[in-house]
Amino acid sequence: MVSRVLEEIKKTIIQRLPSRVQVAKVEFEGPELVIYTKNPEIISENGDLIRELAKDLRKRIIIRSDRSVLMEPEKAIEKIHEIVPKEAEITNISFDDVTCEVIIEAKKPGLVIGKYGSTSREIVKNIGWAPKILRTPPISSEIIQRIRRTLRRNSKERKKILHQLGNRIHQETKYENDWARLTAIGGFREVGRSCLYLQTPNSRILLDCGVNVAGTDEKTSYPFLNVPEFAPDNLDAVIITHAHLDHSGFVPYLYHYGYDGPVYCTTPTRDLMTLLQLDHIDIAYREEQPLPFNVKHVKKCIKHTITLDYGEVTDIAPDIRLTLHNAGHILGSAMAHLHIGDGQHNMVYTGDFKYEQSRLLEPAVTRFPRLETLVMESTYGGKEDVQPPRNHAEKELIKTIYTTLRRGGKILIPVFAVGRAQELMVVLEEYIRTGIIHEVPVYIDGMIWEATAIHTARPEYLSKDLRDQIFHMGHNPFISDIFHKVNGMDERMDIIEGEPSIILSTSGMLTGGNSLEYFKWLCENEKNSLVFVGYQAEGSLGRRLQKGWKEIPLKEEGKTRVYKVKMDIKTIEGFSGHSDRRQLMEYVRRVSPRPEKILICHGDNYKTLDLASSIYRTYKIETKTPLNLETVRIQ
Amino acid sequence: MVSRVLEEIKKTIIQRLPSRVQVAKVEFEGPELVIYTKNPEIISENGDLIRELAKDLRKRIIIRSDRSVLMEPEKAIEKIHEIVPKEAEITNISFDDVTCEVIIEAKKPGLVIGKYGSTSREIVKNIGWAPKILRTPPISSEIIQRIRRTLRRNSKERKKILHQLGNRIHQETKYENDWARLTAIGGFREVGRSCLYLQTPNSRILLDCGVNVAGTDEKTSYPFLNVPEFAPDNLDAVIITHAHLDHSGFVPYLYHYGYDGPVYCTTPTRDLMTLLQLDHIDIAYREEQPLPFNVKHVKKCIKHTITLDYGEVTDIAPDIRLTLHNAGHILGSAMAHLHIGDGQHNMVYTGDFKYEQSRLLEPAVTRFPRLETLVMESTYGGKEDVQPPRNHAEKELIKTIYTTLRRGGKILIPVFAVGRAQELMVVLEEYIRTGIIHEVPVYIDGMIWEATAIHTARPEYLSKDLRDQIFHMGHNPFISDIFHKVNGMDERMDIIEGEPSIILSTSGMLTGGNSLEYFKWLCENEKNSLVFVGYQAEGSLGRRLQKGWKEIPLKEEGKTRVYKVKMDIKTIEGFSGHSDRRQLMEYVRRVSPRPEKILICHGDNYKTLDLASSIYRTYKIETKTPLNLETVRIQ
Repeated sequence: MVSRVLEEIKKTIIQRLPSRVQVAKVEFEGPELVIYTKNPEIISENGDLIRELAKDLRKRIIIRSDRSVLMEPEKAIEKIHEIVPKEAEITNISFDDVTCEVIIEAKKPGLVIGKYGSTSREIVKNIGWAPKILRTPPISSEIIQRIRRTLRRNSKERKKILHQLGNRIHQETKYENDWARLTAIGGFREVGRSCLYLQTPNSRILLDCGVNVAGTDEKTSYPFLNVPEFAPDNLDAVIITHAHLDHSGFVPYLYHYGYDGPVYCTTPTRDLMTLLQLDHIDIAYREEQPLPFNVKHVKKCIKHTITLDYGEVTDIAPDIRLTLHNAGHILGSAMAHLHIGDGQHNMVYTGDFKYEQSRLLEPAVTRFPRLETLVMESTYGGKEDVQPPRNHAEKELIKTIYTTLRRGGKILIPVFAVGRAQELMVVLEEYIRTGIIHEVPVYIDGMIWEATAIHTARPEYLSKDLRDQIFHMGHNPFISDIFHKVNGMDERMDIIEGEPSIILSTSGMLTGGNSLEYFKWLCENEKNSLVFVGYQAEGSLGRRLQKGWKEIPLKEEGKTRVYKVKMDIKTIEGFSGHSDRRQLMEYVRRVSPRPEKILICHGDNYKTLDLASSIYRTYKIETKTPLNLETVRIQ
Repeated sequence: MVSRVLEEIKKTIIQRLPSRVQVAKVEFEGPELVIYTKNPEIISENGDLIRELAKDLRKRIIIRSDRSVLMEPEKAIEKIHEIVPKEAEITNISFDDVTCEVIIEAKKPGLVIGKYGSTSREIVKNIGWAPKILRTPPISSEIIQRIRRTLRRNSKERKKILHQLGNRIHQETKYENDWARLTAIGGFREVGRSCLYLQTPNSRILLDCGVNVAGTDEKTSYPFLNVPEFAPDNLDAVIITHAHLDHSGFVPYLYHYGYDGPVYCTTPTRDLMTLLQLDHIDIAYREEQPLPFNVKHVKKCIKHTITLDYGEVTDIAPDIRLTLHNAGHILGSAMAHLHIGDGQHNMVYTGDFKYEQSRLLEPAVTRFPRLETLVMESTYGGKEDVQPPRNHAEKELIKTIYTTLRRGGKILIPVFAVGRAQELMVVLEEYIRTGIIHEVPVYIDGMIWEATAIHTARPEYLSKDLRDQIFHMGHNPFISDIFHKVNGMDERMDIIEGEPSIILSTSGMLTGGNSLEYFKWLCENEKNSLVFVGYQAEGSLGRRLQKGWKEIPLKEEGKTRVYKVKMDIKTIEGFSGHSDRRQLMEYVRRVSPRPEKILICHGDNYKTLDLASSIYRTYKIETKTPLNLETVRIQ
């Protein structure tokens, strides 16, 4: 069936391309159509033709060189250095025998591509190898290096995976698409272990697969994958909307459980998700509560991940097309738009989203080509969940820092590694650069540094304002001199004993990690300040401090010591990556087209129900609030 | 696991029985515990002991004789005739080598059993074989004979089936029962193809599996068995609430599809269901629209059916106990009460039910030991669906018959074979017997006769009033002389040309069958009357006549002839086997204990929603109106 489809496509391609072009082979690689040719240079000169072909065939097209035209690697490297200007700062060149691509890593990838791709075309013309150009992050990222290494080393296996997947996706549909339904597998009427399962007569898609890190056992920590309709071996695709563990943390388990298919997400989500998954395994191991998967499964996940840019329409099953759109929550966070069947139904799953401009990101997208069912989060869906405006929050933060520094104190900001930390870094950098706060060192401890490195590797996903700064004004706030990476315990002691400073450290709720250590050192001095910028869960140390506890017993080298809290405790609201109640309601008003049905997820029971009934009363749109294990028909 | 359980049980039994009793073997046969003994007579003398044992073990117990104590069949027959009084009118004696039972069919089975089982005990004491006593129906039933024959001939296979099933049911549960959910597979927001799917972590149960006879293709005729969570090979049980095809018509397909487990229903449901399923296959074959199953699968269904009496609590899965209760809809119709887990949840699925005393049946049961979720039908759930009282309906009928007979006309009552036909027979018999209508022949045409025979075989399932008549007053209305079975076309011509009479004939909507033939013969004479007592679907000839059509074109031997309707057309409401709107609301008020949640099924979209919102407004009980393919969590 697929071979017949390919035969047809090959005919069309040969007909449309200039007759000089020799098409060696045409095949599917995951969602993409790959054309192998002996004349890659001719094709690359005809960019418009390829774009038109892609549009007509409704396929994403990649051009690869036939093995026969490849230049010897050593010579090719020389040639590349000849063609590419020095200012591009190439840091690495490697060759992929399997895909016949040359992978060029450079600090300024734009200069390797050239104006309208001219330099890149020049490369393929001269050396045969098709260039794949990657950014060398200004802060080196261990995770990105690791991912790139894994993909390079497993190139052959990955090609096989993509080839099989391609054939599966491009099958004809077996059944009429006369229904579609969603099963709540986790994260409904609760926050944590988000997992939503879409079924049609032809395919089965999982949207997010998270863990509840606050769960006490298997039953409360993991999604209900034992739901009778779910089987990992007939799952077509997994879509991850963003990297936080409550959305991505259980993906490695899927591979342990027998899943062998693709994970779709943005590139930053893949990078950050890998970082968080590995950290999760580490922590669980240290705490002697091992997870039901290990590093091997994270690696398998990397090999099966297909990254998509925002707006890229992609076939992920014979009857389903996926497009990711910016969700404004963290770097790479996405809303998933699914086009089901021949336009029978369109749904959007928001994942976590922020419908407000932040320092880091643009607000969530509201316009979709078509939309019948909206599945939206409700973390701050309660009537009372109204947050102060962002500039108010920033002023509060600056005031606290200013006062603390003036009295010679230090500011500890416990913060989650991915998202809020970088948002604060951008704020601090600006206020220090513009002299509103005088220059003090800002110490970045733990995983925050690595997460920031990933941010610097993917500047295309940042807000327009930041992109302008980085690309046009040559100013990247993340690499400012004010930020110092903390390396080990000695440096920490220096910081504690040193001059006034600002410290960003994980965990965000003081439940462990270095932020807890800093707290112990700093809490008994009334000059210092502790600033909470994120949610403090019931039962966490952070929450107790918010409630005004002044004596805190903490374990230390086996004994318990009582700390007398004298430092200033401050909570600043308004930095959340979630839409508050007003933004959620406003989002529903603005989303276009107007959906016929809205399902509410990712919120405490009360907040889910409150938001649902408010939406229904205000906009007269049907709302549903399924429980985990319930199934709702959307078509 | 099961063998360990059995070992324990055997120990207990030996301990509790008199020491003289030799227990040869103990095993599970479906839901029952079978004790094989060399002293069946001692055990049968200790009825109380066995009852107590059953209660303590929470198992249904059957006593069987060990092969070594069986008398030779020929001698045994002689002995039986010696012991049983002639008045019992034994019609057949056969021996089942596999179960070591002697099957005695008699017109008065009570006399074979004897007072408190004395005669039956005498039999086992003398011949070793345990007697299984069956009623010989006063009207011979081909279907019952066929079923008994099938079971007799496949006794060995059946024992194997029951043995395997027994081991499966009595396993220990594998998972904690922390959820239960229901998937609507058919018959929700519609009437037809009823099918409800219960899932727990330990088991999967199908409640009803019907067809929509008015469906136009596979997609509208059959339940959505392709729903992803359903697989015939891991289904634990099928429960059929009553015999009508919209509840039982697709069961044979399950066996075609790979199901190999039990069907639970009452004995009349098994008999009537078999009758209707075979008829369905016949009609489909004649109309050249064959079904996706055949007679072989009906036979397989018979071999796998386990009949239960009302009130008999039965294990059907490691975590589920089923009890059937009278539903008042047709003979043997039941509500299914399911006790899930260790009392975690109790649900009742009403099937079709009548909450009113009828001639034929007692009203539906309202009291259950426990009840959290009620799934109820809503055929007449609309505000306007109020029917006149039953005695009013009877008076209307009698008036019409009286008038028609007086003017020398004939009365044609097109009627569905199972249910309404027998209800009318009881009414007619009484009015004629008491002289309110003078004696006229009542002709019973087509399948009605066979369905009536099944009613006479199962008098225990009839209303108390009828049971009193039959058992205590020796008067069975169904075998009254006024009823005449119509055999073939010659007799039909005699009826048409003969004296005034009443004709009951199928189909009930004049969509085919002999009622249509009678209509053609009778319609052009203004002396005759046509009486509708049941629902006439849109598009049927019955409906057109109700609307007042006076010229009816009908096909006859290839040509179309226009019939001028001169006969009197009358519709009498109030004979329905469904609860009307008031009875549905009253049922919810009376059902005890008060359920926490009510799911509405088996009604047109509007009626489902109308009943749901009325129940919620009146009783403040949460109601749900799932669509087919939706899943609702009940625990």
